[in-house]
Amino acid sequence: MQLSDKGAVIIDLKFERRDVDQALAGSLAGRQVLHASDKSTDLSSASYAFLWKPDPDLFQRAPNLKILFSGGAGVDSILATPGLPDIPIVRFVDQSLTTRMSEWVVLQCLSHLRQVPAYLVQQRSRTWREISQPEARELTVGVMGLGVLGQDSARKLKIMGFNVIGWSRTAKTVESIETYDATELDAFLARTDILVGLLPLTDETRGIFNASLFSKLRQGGALGTPVFINAGRGGSQVEKDLISALESGTLGGASLDVFEREPLSSDSPFWSMDNVIVTPHAASASDVRALLRNAEVQMERFEKGEPLQHVVDRATGY
Amino acid sequence: MQLSDKGAVIIDLKFERRDVDQALAGSLAGRQVLHASDKSTDLSSASYAFLWKPDPDLFQRAPNLKILFSGGAGVDSILATPGLPDIPIVRFVDQSLTTRMSEWVVLQCLSHLRQVPAYLVQQRSRTWREISQPEARELTVGVMGLGVLGQDSARKLKIMGFNVIGWSRTAKTVESIETYDATELDAFLARTDILVGLLPLTDETRGIFNASLFSKLRQGGALGTPVFINAGRGGSQVEKDLISALESGTLGGASLDVFEREPLSSDSPFWSMDNVIVTPHAASASDVRALLRNAEVQMERFEKGEPLQHVVDRATGY
Repeated sequence: MQLSDKGAVIIDLKFERRDVDQALAGSLAGRQVLHASDKSTDLSSASYAFLWKPDPDLFQRAPNLKILFSGGAGVDSILATPGLPDIPIVRFVDQSLTTRMSEWVVLQCLSHLRQVPAYLVQQRSRTWREISQPEARELTVGVMGLGVLGQDSARKLKIMGFNVIGWSRTAKTVESIETYDATELDAFLARTDILVGLLPLTDETRGIFNASLFSKLRQGGALGTPVFINAGRGGSQVEKDLISALESGTLGGASLDVFEREPLSSDSPFWSMDNVIVTPHAASASDVRALLRNAEVQMERFEKGEPLQHVVDRATGY
Repeated sequence: MQLSDKGAVIIDLKFERRDVDQALAGSLAGRQVLHASDKSTDLSSASYAFLWKPDPDLFQRAPNLKILFSGGAGVDSILATPGLPDIPIVRFVDQSLTTRMSEWVVLQCLSHLRQVPAYLVQQRSRTWREISQPEARELTVGVMGLGVLGQDSARKLKIMGFNVIGWSRTAKTVESIETYDATELDAFLARTDILVGLLPLTDETRGIFNASLFSKLRQGGALGTPVFINAGRGGSQVEKDLISALESGTLGGASLDVFEREPLSSDSPFWSMDNVIVTPHAASASDVRALLRNAEVQMERFEKGEPLQHVVDRATGY
């Protein structure tokens, strides 16, 4: 088969260039690979594009695209790019992406359960003192967002001993987890000691984690005050409300991997709050090799006239 | 039934007195409860004793004991008490004790996998930078000690995605975990990236975690250097060897809940090592209510002439 027989591919992934190059070696056999970062490259022949935070002029330079592949679980940056054509966007669904996210979510829930922030303060002051630590079964973790990531996290949290409940915009059935839908948000929050945000960023979720929502979480549970954990999108959280809730004691702690603006500004109060754990949007990581491998399956399906899988619903935004 | 019809009970538990008093309210119905801490109390009539780090004169004061109940998973402090009578020692086996230990072990393994010590340093310096974090499946956790606690931890680590192998003095079969026995220690260590110690303290395990053992752990795995985690007994670790291994880079990090001398001295280097997580012998915690409840079952079995459960083997020391 000639190089030109298979559709050409654009790479516009704002990842480490080295990771991308390593993954490209030996992948996408028989396809021309065009890098959007090289502004002199003609992208007009390309059929496919791999996108993570794409350039604003990408769709202008590439008017003949047939499928877009998202480089991560969320597609909000693609949906916000000017001139987005009306072609399928394929989400990145991968076991590695899922497993990594669950590692981070379980790590953060256990850290707050087992008083890691308080023990770290004690360690720095060389203090040997046992702190009251409730048992996992005394706490209810409420997971907002029940996609592939939310469901896997919920299952693993349950195995670790937590009570787990789930919330999603439309009702979902998840094995052995009690679930709530959009109309039941207040009831869900009233039972939640640790809130885990794994929501996509859409018009409906922008700013959803605000003062009003924080005030509805369960007070007086086994940890005393509720904890907020977010690994979805920073645009879902109102940071001035979050800071107030942490300072006033409405929230007892937080673990944040995402922020309104990334990288997080060095003068943000989050860095120095003892009860806040900050990670640099590193909760999950796209394995570029897996991304290319999964996309090759979809390109081949498309070229054989078969239906695509994991296509984003433009109406809901995820 | 008269108070005197059921055997009297001695309490010599070096726990928080408040926790013990709360648990005693409503427990041990029909039995006289004697506190060893009151030196004027006559203990000679007591049949049972609840012990955690018992007083050296306890057995002298209580010569008519029939069963000893350990207040924790380990019985080394009871075995070391002068004048120990040749009567059954019942181990404390409880779901809560097991679950808590697995919470701590999974928390520590995830913390090292996900570079928590390095991210904490970055947080303090307000640095936003993703650090290379291998996937759980790229690492092998080796669990030393395959009792109830070790087996539960191994199972949960496997669900979180780690490769898990196990070691015990005598060969054990644990579902879907590859296990090694005393004669195969070197082969076990050579595969281990994260070593989890959950061993009882016996003549054979005293000082087992020493320079020679650390040097046999796998170097060059996905974390670069191996990590040591100990929640068994401090007497199993040689702390000068551990400090050297951490300083020389033979070990890349550690999580320590137990120490040669507890409380850990305020001048110990462990407190200030960035790659060491210290907790104050708080990995698991005996729930006193559960302890009393489990012991009541055994006392009733004994008084009806039925065989006791969870009896310690004096020959092995656990």
